Amino acid sequence: MSDTYGQGSLKIVVIGGGTGSFMLLSALKEYTNSISALVNMADDGGSTGVLRDELGTLPPGDVRQCLVALSDSPKIRDLFNYRFEEGTFEGHAFGNLLLSALEKVTGSFSEAVETASEILRVNGKVIPVTLDNVRLKMEWSERSVILQGERVIDADYFAHDPRRATLSLVPSAHANPDALMAIRAADLIVIAPGDLYTSLGPLLVIDGIGEALQAATAPVIYAANLVTKQGQTDGFTVSDHADEIERFAGRPILDYVLYNSQKPDSELAERYKQEGAYLVEADPEILGKKPYHGIAGKFLGAMASRDKHKEASAVTRSLIRHDSIAVARAIIEVYKNARPAV
Amino acid sequence: MSDTYGQGSLKIVVIGGGTGSFMLLSALKEYTNSISALVNMADDGGSTGVLRDELGTLPPGDVRQCLVALSDSPKIRDLFNYRFEEGTFEGHAFGNLLLSALEKVTGSFSEAVETASEILRVNGKVIPVTLDNVRLKMEWSERSVILQGERVIDADYFAHDPRRATLSLVPSAHANPDALMAIRAADLIVIAPGDLYTSLGPLLVIDGIGEALQAATAPVIYAANLVTKQGQTDGFTVSDHADEIERFAGRPILDYVLYNSQKPDSELAERYKQEGAYLVEADPEILGKKPYHGIAGKFLGAMASRDKHKEASAVTRSLIRHDSIAVARAIIEVYKNARPAV
Repeated sequence: MSDTYGQGSLKIVVIGGGTGSFMLLSALKEYTNSISALVNMADDGGSTGVLRDELGTLPPGDVRQCLVALSDSPKIRDLFNYRFEEGTFEGHAFGNLLLSALEKVTGSFSEAVETASEILRVNGKVIPVTLDNVRLKMEWSERSVILQGERVIDADYFAHDPRRATLSLVPSAHANPDALMAIRAADLIVIAPGDLYTSLGPLLVIDGIGEALQAATAPVIYAANLVTKQGQTDGFTVSDHADEIERFAGRPILDYVLYNSQKPDSELAERYKQEGAYLVEADPEILGKKPYHGIAGKFLGAMASRDKHKEASAVTRSLIRHDSIAVARAIIEVYKNARPAV
Repeated sequence: MSDTYGQGSLKIVVIGGGTGSFMLLSALKEYTNSISALVNMADDGGSTGVLRDELGTLPPGDVRQCLVALSDSPKIRDLFNYRFEEGTFEGHAFGNLLLSALEKVTGSFSEAVETASEILRVNGKVIPVTLDNVRLKMEWSERSVILQGERVIDADYFAHDPRRATLSLVPSAHANPDALMAIRAADLIVIAPGDLYTSLGPLLVIDGIGEALQAATAPVIYAANLVTKQGQTDGFTVSDHADEIERFAGRPILDYVLYNSQKPDSELAERYKQEGAYLVEADPEILGKKPYHGIAGKFLGAMASRDKHKEASAVTRSLIRHDSIAVARAIIEVYKNARPAV
């Protein structure tokens, strides 16, 4: 716990889904005891999808990742992330089973998350952004193309420009009042990097979330994606990503966009190329004309190694990772500059 | 916690398997903070059997029941006992999955039990009687009949007198040193009621357990079975049960046999008859000639209701239950009379 700047009880809200939130939460928890993770609830793929289909429970996967990120118990963390490697349970993350079983036992996903937080000794709060049982829908109305379900959308190579598509939840979702309260009370709000159409979008389109973010007194920072998603956001620049985020929210919500300006060395660039991974291009001249502030940083981390037990995705999962410590440090700097230390 | 007689830290060891141990542990924990449950590890039926077969883990089912009995957390207790009711996981008790996943994560069943004990806030200790991966075998050598596996033996209607059969574990099991230590340190040792050939036998035949029980300074009490098991112990009296227990242990180990002498009223007797359940007959005249003391009591409890999610058994599960509070009280009385209060 670094408390040099008196930010030990800084109320940070991190908004997102899986890996991006995990990365930011793990790094930001070094700065505060008061993190709230607001989590996307439209996931229906992999282990999560099977549990939803078979048990009728709410999606546990992203919530599990955020719980694990904020856990103070390494042993239980390993248990939650354990994936059965054989037999009936193959591919299921244990923490997903636990959340779904708890939801069945208590009759409430909220209570399940609370009890799981106790078991994991979570420092902070994990808040499902909605408690409605919803599925994601993406439609290009004028072309009558409809994609149904996050898993389907995640795996799709869009035939049409996604910026012309409407993203919605079916049935329409109510924001979890705890999520709105966390946004209102926050000192600092961070939108984590994540897939635009299957992770950030489904969260930001929920009624009330955009309004709350716009009305928040805390600065809202988008920690921009590092790579584009093949077949979905090829060629998208940093400002393209930010534009989509504000389009989902239905209004201007961003105060800062934190983006990577570091170029990979030739060896790393070669490996990226081999993997078909493309860095999001920074466009400072366009960012400079936006109402929010663009802030560049050196955020390239080591390449992640492939994990065969990660939930599979038809689109190749990027191996490029943020240097999470550098991103967290930059976020805290933004806060300090936005609000001078007392 | 009733501490009227200063037995708050009384070291009680309860030996057994599933339901009988659960019943005794739940009632005896009102008298002490220092219960150790020594648990049969030959189970290979139901959810436990599937996990053993698919994951190669040690049997979690009986351990789970004992952990739950000693847990101080009602919410987590419900979670551990929750059985999935549909889909891929149907019939699996969540606590079984947790123990098997923990064993996979930590690489040690002992450590899994320890971590599960923390999660459940267990008051006392649950000790697998062996940490070897073993299966039960029952053979009538002169007839070359062999039954392999606890599930198979449990479901069998014995064609030959089981008292002539040899019960063993394959491969031969080493006693868990923690189990031997608990027996040595005990103030009071209770053998819980349980199926002779599939619950108590597989535990007592383990090398070193019989010797430790004989050498123990604590009184050893057998809380005798209430009902016979159809096809296996039909017609067995209280002393027949006690004889088999000492045969498994390979030596005289019992100091007291606590048995029920209460007759059911006519309404209850009629229901027993309808269910094909038969009370174990008390035989005080034979017990009177044994080196141990027979002690009669009124131990008939309410009839249990059928639970469709209980692990299935081909032999009808008895609905007659002990009055666990009365049995626990009688056990504590035996201790008080055997060792006068200081």
